[in-house]
Amino acid sequence: MLLPDPIQNLINALSRLPGVGPKTASRLTFYLLRGGDDLPQTLADALVALRANITYCQRCHNITTTGRDLCKVCADPTRDQRVICVVEDPLDVVAIERTAGYQGVYHVLHGALSPIEGIGPNDLKIASLLTRLSAAADVIGEVVIATNPSMEGDATAMYLRQQIAPLGVRTTRLAHGLPVGGDLEYADQNTLLRALAGRRELE
Amino acid sequence: MLLPDPIQNLINALSRLPGVGPKTASRLTFYLLRGGDDLPQTLADALVALRANITYCQRCHNITTTGRDLCKVCADPTRDQRVICVVEDPLDVVAIERTAGYQGVYHVLHGALSPIEGIGPNDLKIASLLTRLSAAADVIGEVVIATNPSMEGDATAMYLRQQIAPLGVRTTRLAHGLPVGGDLEYADQNTLLRALAGRRELE
Repeated sequence: MLLPDPIQNLINALSRLPGVGPKTASRLTFYLLRGGDDLPQTLADALVALRANITYCQRCHNITTTGRDLCKVCADPTRDQRVICVVEDPLDVVAIERTAGYQGVYHVLHGALSPIEGIGPNDLKIASLLTRLSAAADVIGEVVIATNPSMEGDATAMYLRQQIAPLGVRTTRLAHGLPVGGDLEYADQNTLLRALAGRRELE
Repeated sequence: MLLPDPIQNLINALSRLPGVGPKTASRLTFYLLRGGDDLPQTLADALVALRANITYCQRCHNITTTGRDLCKVCADPTRDQRVICVVEDPLDVVAIERTAGYQGVYHVLHGALSPIEGIGPNDLKIASLLTRLSAAADVIGEVVIATNPSMEGDATAMYLRQQIAPLGVRTTRLAHGLPVGGDLEYADQNTLLRALAGRRELE
Protein backbone atom coordinates (compact mmCIF):
# COMPACT_ATOMS: atom_id res chain seq x y z
CA MET A 1 0.00 0.00 0.00
CA LEU A 2 1.38 3.35 -0.97
CA LEU A 3 0.80 6.28 1.37
CA PRO A 4 -1.79 8.86 0.28
CA ASP A 5 -0.27 11.64 -1.83
CA PRO A 6 -0.56 14.45 0.75
CA ILE A 7 1.49 12.37 3.19
CA GLN A 8 4.03 11.14 0.65
CA ASN A 9 4.53 14.68 -0.68
CA LEU A 10 5.39 16.02 2.76
CA ILE A 11 7.71 13.08 3.46
CA ASN A 12 9.48 13.75 0.15
CA ALA A 13 9.83 17.47 0.86
CA LEU A 14 11.14 16.93 4.40
CA SER A 15 13.61 14.30 3.13
CA ARG A 16 15.30 17.00 1.09
CA LEU A 17 16.44 18.78 4.26
CA PRO A 18 20.04 18.05 5.32
CA GLY A 19 20.28 15.32 7.94
CA VAL A 20 16.66 14.25 7.47
CA GLY A 21 16.28 10.78 5.97
CA PRO A 22 13.07 9.07 4.83
CA LYS A 23 12.52 7.52 8.28
CA THR A 24 12.81 10.82 10.14
CA ALA A 25 10.66 12.50 7.48
CA SER A 26 7.89 9.89 8.03
CA ARG A 27 8.08 10.32 11.76
CA LEU A 28 7.83 14.12 11.48
CA THR A 29 4.98 13.90 8.98
CA PHE A 30 2.89 11.63 11.19
CA TYR A 31 3.67 13.84 14.16
CA LEU A 32 2.36 16.84 12.23
CA LEU A 33 -0.67 14.87 11.13
CA ARG A 34 -1.56 13.67 14.60
CA GLY A 35 -1.03 16.90 16.51
CA GLY A 36 -4.21 18.86 17.08
CA ASP A 37 -2.42 22.18 17.12
CA ASP A 38 -1.46 24.94 14.72
CA LEU A 39 2.07 23.69 13.98
CA PRO A 40 1.64 22.74 10.30
CA GLN A 41 0.10 26.12 9.45
CA THR A 42 2.63 28.02 11.60
CA LEU A 43 5.49 26.22 9.87
CA ALA A 44 3.99 26.83 6.42
CA ASP A 45 3.57 30.55 7.15
CA ALA A 46 7.11 30.86 8.51
CA LEU A 47 8.52 29.10 5.43
CA VAL A 48 6.74 31.44 3.04
CA ALA A 49 7.73 34.51 5.09
CA LEU A 50 11.38 33.43 5.19
CA ARG A 51 12.21 34.04 1.56
CA ALA A 52 9.79 36.93 1.20
CA ASN A 53 11.10 38.95 4.13
CA ILE A 54 14.81 38.18 4.29
CA THR A 55 17.45 39.72 2.08
CA TYR A 56 21.16 40.44 2.37
CA CYS A 57 23.02 43.52 3.53
CA GLN A 58 24.39 45.39 0.51
CA ARG A 59 27.63 46.13 2.29
CA CYS A 60 28.54 42.96 4.26
CA HIS A 61 26.11 40.32 2.89
CA ASN A 62 24.81 39.52 6.35
CA ILE A 63 21.09 38.81 6.60
CA THR A 64 18.68 41.71 6.94
CA THR A 65 14.94 42.18 6.62
CA THR A 66 13.53 43.14 3.22
CA GLY A 67 13.42 46.92 2.75
CA ARG A 68 16.62 47.61 4.67
CA ASP A 69 19.75 47.98 2.59
CA LEU A 70 22.08 47.59 5.54
CA CYS A 71 22.05 44.97 8.29
CA LYS A 72 21.73 45.92 11.95
CA VAL A 73 25.49 45.86 12.48
CA CYS A 74 26.40 47.97 9.43
CA ALA A 75 23.62 50.44 10.24
CA ASP A 76 24.77 50.82 13.85
CA PRO A 77 26.76 54.10 14.18
CA THR A 78 28.45 52.87 17.38
CA ARG A 79 30.24 50.01 15.60
CA ASP A 80 33.88 50.44 14.65
CA GLN A 81 33.95 50.53 10.84
CA ARG A 82 37.75 50.26 10.85
CA VAL A 83 37.75 46.59 11.82
CA ILE A 84 36.15 44.00 9.53
CA CYS A 85 35.62 40.43 10.66
CA VAL A 86 35.33 37.98 7.75
CA VAL A 87 33.11 34.95 8.43
CA GLU A 88 31.72 32.11 6.32
CA ASP A 89 28.03 32.29 7.28
CA PRO A 90 25.44 34.58 8.87
CA LEU A 91 25.25 32.13 11.79
CA ASP A 92 28.91 32.87 12.51
CA VAL A 93 27.96 36.55 12.92
CA VAL A 94 25.35 35.47 15.47
CA ALA A 95 27.94 33.39 17.34
CA ILE A 96 30.45 36.26 17.51
CA GLU A 97 27.78 38.81 18.46
CA ARG A 98 26.74 36.51 21.29
CA THR A 99 30.20 36.90 22.87
CA ALA A 100 29.64 40.68 23.09
CA GLY A 101 33.42 40.94 22.67
CA TYR A 102 33.60 42.41 19.18
CA GLN A 103 32.83 46.00 18.26
CA GLY A 104 33.77 46.04 14.57
CA VAL A 105 31.72 45.18 11.50
CA TYR A 106 31.51 42.02 9.40
CA HIS A 107 31.85 40.59 5.93
CA VAL A 108 29.99 37.35 5.21
CA LEU A 109 31.56 35.18 2.48
CA HIS A 110 28.63 32.75 2.25
CA GLY A 111 30.84 29.69 2.21
CA ALA A 112 34.48 28.69 2.04
CA LEU A 113 36.80 27.67 -0.78
CA SER A 114 36.39 23.98 -1.53
CA PRO A 115 37.92 22.51 -4.68
CA ILE A 116 36.19 19.19 -3.92
CA GLU A 117 32.75 20.80 -3.94
CA GLY A 118 33.77 23.04 -6.84
CA ILE A 119 33.51 26.24 -4.80
CA GLY A 120 36.03 28.80 -6.05
CA PRO A 121 36.70 32.48 -5.17
CA ASN A 122 33.98 33.65 -7.58
CA ASP A 123 31.34 31.66 -5.71
CA LEU A 124 32.06 33.61 -2.52
CA LYS A 125 31.66 37.29 -1.62
CA ILE A 126 35.41 37.84 -1.98
CA ALA A 127 35.42 40.38 -4.80
CA SER A 128 33.10 42.68 -2.85
CA LEU A 129 35.37 42.36 0.21
CA LEU A 130 38.38 43.45 -1.84
CA THR A 131 36.41 46.33 -3.37
CA ARG A 132 35.31 47.36 0.11
CA LEU A 133 38.91 47.28 1.37
CA SER A 134 40.35 49.10 -1.67
CA ALA A 135 37.78 51.86 -1.32
CA ALA A 136 38.82 52.52 2.27
CA ALA A 137 42.30 51.00 2.66
CA ASP A 138 43.52 54.04 4.59
CA VAL A 139 40.60 53.87 7.02
CA ILE A 140 40.43 50.14 7.67
CA GLY A 141 42.93 49.13 10.29
CA GLU A 142 42.41 45.38 10.50
CA VAL A 143 40.73 42.45 8.81
CA VAL A 144 40.03 39.61 11.26
CA ILE A 145 39.65 36.37 9.33
CA ALA A 146 37.25 34.18 11.28
CA THR A 147 36.64 31.35 8.82
CA ASN A 148 36.12 27.92 10.37
CA PRO A 149 39.12 26.03 11.75
CA SER A 150 38.72 23.45 8.97
CA MET A 151 40.63 22.58 5.78
CA GLU A 152 38.30 24.80 3.75
CA GLY A 153 38.34 27.60 6.30
CA ASP A 154 42.15 27.56 6.48
CA ALA A 155 42.47 27.53 2.68
CA THR A 156 40.06 30.47 2.48
CA ALA A 157 42.06 32.37 5.10
CA MET A 158 45.32 31.79 3.20
CA TYR A 159 43.73 32.92 -0.05
CA LEU A 160 42.31 36.06 1.55
CA ARG A 161 45.65 36.93 3.12
CA GLN A 162 47.31 36.75 -0.31
CA GLN A 163 44.62 38.92 -1.88
CA ILE A 164 44.58 41.50 0.91
CA ALA A 165 48.39 41.79 1.27
CA PRO A 166 48.86 44.19 -1.71
CA LEU A 167 46.32 46.56 -0.15
CA GLY A 168 48.54 46.98 2.90
CA VAL A 169 45.75 46.18 5.38
CA ARG A 170 46.69 44.29 8.53
CA THR A 171 45.22 40.77 8.45
CA THR A 172 44.73 38.59 11.54
CA ARG A 173 43.21 35.17 12.14
CA LEU A 174 41.29 33.91 15.18
CA ALA A 175 43.54 31.95 17.55
CA HIS A 176 43.54 28.17 17.44
CA GLY A 177 44.10 26.26 20.64
CA LEU A 178 42.51 24.29 23.41
CA PRO A 179 38.81 24.99 23.87
CA VAL A 180 37.99 26.54 27.24
CA GLY A 181 36.75 23.88 29.63
CA GLY A 182 38.27 21.17 27.45
CA ASP A 183 40.59 18.45 28.66
CA LEU A 184 44.13 18.40 27.27
CA GLU A 185 44.07 14.62 27.34
CA TYR A 186 41.20 14.54 24.87
CA ALA A 187 42.43 17.30 22.54
CA ASP A 188 43.23 16.03 19.05
CA GLN A 189 46.77 16.16 17.75
CA ASN A 190 46.24 19.12 15.42
CA THR A 191 44.58 21.25 18.09
CA LEU A 192 47.40 20.46 20.50
CA LEU A 193 50.04 21.29 17.86
CA ARG A 194 48.34 24.62 17.19
CA ALA A 195 48.00 25.31 20.91
CA LEU A 196 51.74 24.67 21.35
CA ALA A 197 52.71 26.80 18.35
CA GLY A 198 50.48 29.62 19.57
CA ARG A 199 51.65 29.56 23.20
CA ARG A 200 51.93 32.97 24.85
CA GLU A 201 53.83 34.50 27.76
CA LEU A 202 52.00 34.40 31.03
CA GLU A 203 51.45 37.98 32.12
CA MET B 1 22.22 40.81 17.90
CA LEU B 2 18.90 39.08 17.65
CA LEU B 3 18.04 37.32 14.42
CA PRO B 4 15.47 39.01 12.15
CA ASP B 5 11.90 37.93 12.94
CA PRO B 6 11.28 35.85 9.80
CA ILE B 7 14.31 33.71 10.66
CA GLN B 8 13.60 33.45 14.37
CA ASN B 9 9.96 32.51 13.66
CA LEU B 10 10.98 29.60 11.46
CA ILE B 11 13.60 28.45 13.98
CA ASN B 12 10.94 28.53 16.70
CA ALA B 13 8.44 26.59 14.59
CA LEU B 14 10.98 23.93 13.56
CA SER B 15 12.13 23.57 17.19
CA ARG B 16 8.65 22.33 18.07
CA LEU B 17 9.16 19.19 15.98
CA PRO B 18 10.19 16.09 17.94
CA GLY B 19 13.94 15.51 17.91
CA VAL B 20 14.69 18.98 16.50
CA GLY B 21 16.53 21.25 18.93
CA PRO B 22 17.32 24.95 18.50
CA LYS B 23 20.70 24.17 16.87
CA THR B 24 19.22 21.83 14.28
CA ALA B 25 16.38 24.28 13.68
CA SER B 26 18.91 27.09 12.97
CA ARG B 27 20.86 24.87 10.63
CA LEU B 28 17.72 23.88 8.71
CA THR B 29 16.50 27.49 8.57
CA PHE B 30 19.76 28.77 7.11
CA TYR B 31 19.81 25.85 4.70
CA LEU B 32 16.33 26.82 3.51
CA LEU B 33 17.35 30.47 3.29
CA ARG B 34 20.48 29.76 1.27
CA GLY B 35 19.08 27.25 -1.19
CA GLY B 36 18.10 28.77 -4.51
CA ASP B 37 15.38 26.22 -5.13
CA ASP B 38 11.69 25.73 -4.51
CA LEU B 39 12.03 23.79 -1.25
CA PRO B 40 10.53 26.34 1.21
CA GLN B 41 7.44 26.80 -0.97
CA THR B 42 7.13 23.05 -1.67
CA LEU B 43 7.33 22.33 2.05
CA ALA B 44 4.80 25.04 2.88
CA ASP B 45 2.35 23.71 0.28
CA ALA B 46 2.77 20.13 1.49
CA LEU B 47 2.17 21.19 5.10
CA VAL B 48 -1.05 22.99 4.25
CA ALA B 49 -2.25 20.10 2.06
CA LEU B 50 -1.52 17.54 4.79
CA ARG B 51 -4.30 18.51 7.17
CA ALA B 52 -6.68 19.58 4.41
CA ASN B 53 -6.50 16.36 2.44
CA ILE B 54 -6.01 13.62 5.00
CA THR B 55 -8.72 12.11 7.14
CA TYR B 56 -9.29 8.78 8.85
CA CYS B 57 -11.07 5.63 7.73
CA GLN B 58 -14.47 5.41 9.43
CA ARG B 59 -14.07 1.69 9.96
CA CYS B 60 -10.43 1.12 10.96
CA HIS B 61 -9.12 4.66 11.65
CA ASN B 62 -6.26 4.21 9.20
CA ILE B 63 -5.36 7.29 7.13
CA THR B 64 -7.32 7.99 3.97
CA THR B 65 -7.69 10.92 1.62
CA THR B 66 -10.48 13.41 2.32
CA GLY B 67 -13.73 12.41 0.60
CA ARG B 68 -13.23 8.67 1.04
CA ASP B 69 -14.99 7.11 4.01
CA LEU B 70 -12.95 3.92 3.88
CA CYS B 71 -9.18 3.52 3.54
CA LYS B 72 -7.63 1.57 0.67
CA VAL B 73 -7.43 -1.63 2.70
CA CYS B 74 -11.01 -1.58 4.00
CA ALA B 75 -12.31 -0.67 0.54
CA ASP B 76 -10.41 -3.52 -1.12
CA PRO B 77 -12.85 -6.44 -1.77
CA THR B 78 -9.96 -8.93 -2.03
CA ARG B 79 -8.93 -8.43 1.62
CA ASP B 80 -10.02 -10.97 4.19
CA GLN B 81 -12.48 -9.14 6.46
CA ARG B 82 -12.42 -12.06 8.92
CA VAL B 83 -8.94 -11.23 10.23
CA ILE B 84 -8.29 -7.90 11.97
CA CYS B 85 -4.77 -6.77 12.79
CA VAL B 86 -4.68 -4.22 15.61
CA VAL B 87 -1.79 -1.71 15.40
CA GLU B 88 -0.83 1.45 17.25
CA ASP B 89 -0.19 3.80 14.34
CA PRO B 90 -0.87 4.23 10.62
CA LEU B 91 2.87 3.78 10.01
CA ASP B 92 2.57 0.26 11.44
CA VAL B 93 0.01 -0.50 8.73
CA VAL B 94 2.56 0.66 6.16
CA ALA B 95 5.23 -1.58 7.70
CA ILE B 96 2.98 -4.66 7.66
CA GLU B 97 1.70 -3.94 4.15
CA ARG B 98 5.31 -3.75 2.99
CA THR B 99 5.84 -7.40 3.98
CA ALA B 100 3.04 -8.41 1.56
CA GLY B 101 2.43 -11.26 4.00
CA TYR B 102 -0.91 -10.17 5.45
CA GLN B 103 -4.26 -10.39 3.66
CA GLY B 104 -6.62 -9.29 6.43
CA VAL B 105 -7.78 -5.81 7.46
CA TYR B 106 -6.62 -3.45 10.20
CA HIS B 107 -7.70 -1.48 13.22
CA VAL B 108 -5.53 1.50 14.18
CA LEU B 109 -5.61 2.40 17.89
CA HIS B 110 -3.72 5.70 17.49
CA GLY B 111 -1.45 5.05 20.44
CA ALA B 112 -0.94 2.62 23.29
CA LEU B 113 -2.02 2.58 26.92
CA SER B 114 0.41 4.59 29.01
CA PRO B 115 -0.47 5.52 32.58
CA ILE B 116 2.69 7.68 32.76
CA GLU B 117 1.58 9.83 29.84
CA GLY B 118 -2.02 9.68 31.05
CA ILE B 119 -3.25 7.71 28.04
CA GLY B 120 -6.16 5.45 29.01
CA PRO B 121 -8.51 3.19 27.02
CA ASN B 122 -10.80 6.10 26.20
CA ASP B 123 -7.97 7.95 24.46
CA LEU B 124 -7.52 5.08 22.00
CA LYS B 125 -9.83 3.64 19.34
CA ILE B 126 -10.65 0.65 21.55
CA ALA B 127 -14.42 1.16 21.93
CA SER B 128 -14.86 1.19 18.17
CA LEU B 129 -12.81 -2.01 17.88
CA LEU B 130 -15.08 -3.76 20.40
CA THR B 131 -18.18 -2.45 18.63
CA ARG B 132 -16.75 -3.70 15.35
CA LEU B 133 -16.07 -7.14 16.86
CA SER B 134 -19.45 -7.42 18.61
CA ALA B 135 -21.29 -6.56 15.42
CA ALA B 136 -19.59 -9.40 13.57
CA ALA B 137 -18.30 -11.81 16.24
CA ASP B 138 -19.52 -14.83 14.28
CA VAL B 139 -17.74 -13.68 11.11
CA ILE B 140 -14.43 -12.53 12.54
CA GLY B 141 -12.09 -15.46 13.02
CA GLU B 142 -9.02 -13.81 14.49
CA VAL B 143 -7.73 -10.60 15.99
CA VAL B 144 -3.95 -10.27 15.56
CA ILE B 145 -2.62 -7.85 18.13
CA ALA B 146 0.41 -6.14 16.62
CA THR B 147 1.10 -3.42 19.17
CA ASN B 148 4.78 -2.55 19.70
CA PRO B 149 7.00 -4.94 21.68
CA SER B 150 7.28 -2.32 24.43
CA MET B 151 5.89 -1.92 27.95
CA GLU B 152 2.99 0.14 26.61
CA GLY B 153 2.39 -2.15 23.67
CA ASP B 154 2.37 -5.22 25.91
CA ALA B 155 0.00 -3.58 28.39
CA THR B 156 -2.32 -2.62 25.54
CA ALA B 157 -2.24 -6.19 24.21
CA MET B 158 -3.13 -7.60 27.64
CA TYR B 159 -5.99 -5.13 28.04
CA LEU B 160 -7.36 -5.90 24.59
CA ARG B 161 -7.20 -9.65 25.24
CA GLN B 162 -9.29 -9.19 28.40
CA GLN B 163 -11.82 -7.05 26.59
CA ILE B 164 -12.09 -9.32 23.58
CA ALA B 165 -12.26 -12.62 25.54
CA PRO B 166 -16.02 -12.36 26.38
CA LEU B 167 -16.77 -11.97 22.66
CA GLY B 168 -15.28 -15.40 21.98
CA VAL B 169 -13.00 -14.16 19.18
CA ARG B 170 -9.59 -15.82 18.84
CA THR B 171 -6.85 -13.36 19.81
CA THR B 172 -3.20 -13.74 18.78
CA ARG B 173 -0.08 -11.62 19.23
CA LEU B 174 2.89 -11.16 16.90
CA ALA B 175 5.81 -13.41 17.86
CA HIS B 176 8.69 -12.00 19.88
CA GLY B 177 12.17 -13.35 19.28
CA LEU B 178 15.50 -12.78 17.63
CA PRO B 179 15.38 -10.34 14.73
CA VAL B 180 16.32 -11.91 11.41
CA GLY B 181 19.93 -11.13 10.56
CA GLY B 182 20.61 -10.28 14.20
CA ASP B 183 23.38 -11.71 16.28
CA LEU B 184 22.42 -13.81 19.30
CA GLU B 185 25.42 -12.41 21.16
CA TYR B 186 24.02 -8.90 20.92
CA ALA B 187 20.39 -9.73 21.69
CA ASP B 188 19.18 -8.17 24.93
CA GLN B 189 18.12 -10.37 27.80
CA ASN B 190 14.38 -9.87 27.37
CA THR B 191 14.45 -10.66 23.67
CA LEU B 192 16.48 -13.80 24.36
CA LEU B 193 14.09 -14.87 27.12
CA ARG B 194 11.13 -14.39 24.78
CA ALA B 195 12.94 -16.23 21.98
CA LEU B 196 13.57 -19.16 24.34
CA ALA B 197 10.02 -19.19 25.66
CA GLY B 198 8.66 -19.05 22.11
CA ARG B 199 10.91 -21.77 20.66
CA ARG B 200 9.31 -24.02 18.10
CA GLU B 201 9.84 -27.55 16.75
CA LEU B 202 12.05 -27.70 13.69
CA GLU B 203 9.98 -29.15 10.88
